[in-house]
Amino acid sequence: MPRAIVTLTTDFGTSDHFVGSMKGVILGLAPLASIVDITHEIQPFAIEEGAFTISETYRDFPKRTIHVVVVDPGVGSARRPVLIQAAGQFFIGPDNGVFAMLCAAEKHTARHLTNARYFSKAVSRTFHGRDIFAPVAGHLAKGVAAAKFGPVVKDLLRNDWFQPQRTSRRVWTGAVLKEDRFGNLITNLKMAEFDLPNRRTFEVRIGMQRVHLCVRNYSEASIGELFVLEGSSGYIEVSANQASAAKLLGCGAGAPVEVEIW
Amino acid sequence: MPRAIVTLTTDFGTSDHFVGSMKGVILGLAPLASIVDITHEIQPFAIEEGAFTISETYRDFPKRTIHVVVVDPGVGSARRPVLIQAAGQFFIGPDNGVFAMLCAAEKHTARHLTNARYFSKAVSRTFHGRDIFAPVAGHLAKGVAAAKFGPVVKDLLRNDWFQPQRTSRRVWTGAVLKEDRFGNLITNLKMAEFDLPNRRTFEVRIGMQRVHLCVRNYSEASIGELFVLEGSSGYIEVSANQASAAKLLGCGAGAPVEVEIW
Amino acid sequence: MPRAIVTLTTDFGTSDHFVGSMKGVILGLAPLASIVDITHEIQPFAIEEGAFTISETYRDFPKRTIHVVVVDPGVGSARRPVLIQAAGQFFIGPDNGVFAMLCAAEKHTARHLTNARYFSKAVSRTFHGRDIFAPVAGHLAKGVAAAKFGPVVKDLLRNDWFQPQRTSRRVWTGAVLKEDRFGNLITNLKMAEFDLPNRRTFEVRIGMQRVHLCVRNYSEASIGELFVLEGSSGYIEVSANQASAAKLLGCGAGAPVEVEIW
Repeated sequence: MPRAIVTLTTDFGTSDHFVGSMKGVILGLAPLASIVDITHEIQPFAIEEGAFTISETYRDFPKRTIHVVVVDPGVGSARRPVLIQAAGQFFIGPDNGVFAMLCAAEKHTARHLTNARYFSKAVSRTFHGRDIFAPVAGHLAKGVAAAKFGPVVKDLLRNDWFQPQRTSRRVWTGAVLKEDRFGNLITNLKMAEFDLPNRRTFEVRIGMQRVHLCVRNYSEASIGELFVLEGSSGYIEVSANQASAAKLLGCGAGAPVEVEIW
Repeated sequence: MPRAIVTLTTDFGTSDHFVGSMKGVILGLAPLASIVDITHEIQPFAIEEGAFTISETYRDFPKRTIHVVVVDPGVGSARRPVLIQAAGQFFIGPDNGVFAMLCAAEKHTARHLTNARYFSKAVSRTFHGRDIFAPVAGHLAKGVAAAKFGPVVKDLLRNDWFQPQRTSRRVWTGAVLKEDRFGNLITNLKMAEFDLPNRRTFEVRIGMQRVHLCVRNYSEASIGELFVLEGSSGYIEVSANQASAAKLLGCGAGAPVEVEIW
Repeated sequence: MPRAIVTLTTDFGTSDHFVGSMKGVILGLAPLASIVDITHEIQPFAIEEGAFTISETYRDFPKRTIHVVVVDPGVGSARRPVLIQAAGQFFIGPDNGVFAMLCAAEKHTARHLTNARYFSKAVSRTFHGRDIFAPVAGHLAKGVAAAKFGPVVKDLLRNDWFQPQRTSRRVWTGAVLKEDRFGNLITNLKMAEFDLPNRRTFEVRIGMQRVHLCVRNYSEASIGELFVLEGSSGYIEVSANQASAAKLLGCGAGAPVEVEIW
């Protein structure tokens, strides 16, 4: 059995015991697993941010990695727990949209987690991270076949909040998906579709500002100057060299962004 | 030798090198150990919060797990370093009350860590996490027998701040043990002892509010509504659906709570 | 092949996917590696804090540990990526001063990372942590010889911001290197050079205060009293028992400190 990698992405924060308890359950089942925290600082209940975060990082992991994503405002209610196979990897979490970006990008098979044999003996009503998602991840890491966990389902929750719209002939309207630690604003507009570095005229509108500078590295701009560049995942990012674009613009996740090209 | 699990619970935060240094020491002794962070965000010197946190999570770990708990305002003074065996697991830390909840719940054997052979060569006066507790955990993970570390002691520091009191025939007075990341207020009152879900009449008093609603899942209540439910460890929690009960009530750890039943 | 230890010290924070992606890349190459977070809370772009943090902790790790340090305001510009061998360990990061304290303390050999064979296939312009430093760490953990990564260089960026100055016959002027989680102020003055615990008369000047008390343990002082002591790495720390010296003094990293002895 190879050494399984299990990643965790949650809105649990790191000041409680929640994440530790999930790891205890996983290691109790799969002692050789290597557990990686993606982040536990998803804003509470922010399904979109969870969806974006896992979709940004799974490509950096090897085949057969098991990703557990728990952003779950409906814990204990009727939303289904699911196991998704996509890109040669596994994704475990609630069927509430947290895998919508992933499933829009990758062919996938989804299963409804119905086989309680792979849950904890007593499933609490408030902590499915520990009682359903962690034990399923542990059993999967141990080598249990995906088909054992439950039947295939075809009706995963879909939505397309993350897709920009073309709002006139030369204008696309998108949104900020995330404000990162440095205050960079990651939009849902793919740089490759606009090719801004090679255009003479374009305008990115965000907050009360119009940005006309597109650079390749942060350090090409003056300190504090606003610009756009292609972020590490291919999206247009609005940034400022050694300063927070988010603070300069008064914008964060959800803020609208327009790109106009000539 | 199986792969040992070592957990860490401290008030060190994660912005300094302290936790990293402890892990370096443990892995230098036991390279195969799997180290799990429970949390490093215990409020500085908050022994009660440390006691609560470790008592909430150890049951989720397998037998022989080694838990290191360092919330240690008296570092360098006369308080004893101890190794406790309870529930088939090991607990290492200062004898300052941080294991009081654990020891009230489980039969246990405690040893005073006196054998300096298992400490770092030079023990600093301010960082026993690195110089005493981490090396003892590393040696234990390597397979050194518990009895080698020091003699059994019978006079562990006890206290019962975490026990609710019956203050009249129908009223119990307890306290909030912890405010979690979501603003849920975890009390020291066990739901099983009050059976609120099956009672027609009860009142929970906290802050300036009286709560009469008991639900099974967060999502049964209206958004923002205050209620109580059984938390994932069996305690009564005061919560609000997708809102922070702590903010709504202006309450946090230490706040008094009364339960009245008819 | 022994199990490699790889540590990470960055200013990436833990709310984005950046650290997770670096770990995915490392584990994809070296599945048995044990990855340790030193901290990801270095202040954005604070090269000095990164330099101090790694120099505080590497001695606690075993030989052959691989330390990756990414505090990199010049990512994508001309600053060189380097691999340094020192103290029997490996250090990977940008040549921007982040290894200056280490290199002042240890004999070392540095190499310019030029062999793109050990980078990710596509190197982004903004995320060398994932695309250069993590894959080099992964290949090193897998057993690739240091010499394969690039040629030896002798002109590493040097600076001596961390060295105190003798400013008169009896006075040394230094600075606070870091404010830790507890509000202790760690200076760049080595206690062993001043031997304050055995002096009858000395004065430490910081903020608007003069400190004349030197203790061995935090608990020797009254609660809230200011004092100096030898920190766990040998530096003079300005502290207060169960209180934040940083808050009491209104000082943080960079604040000047004077020591006068008679």
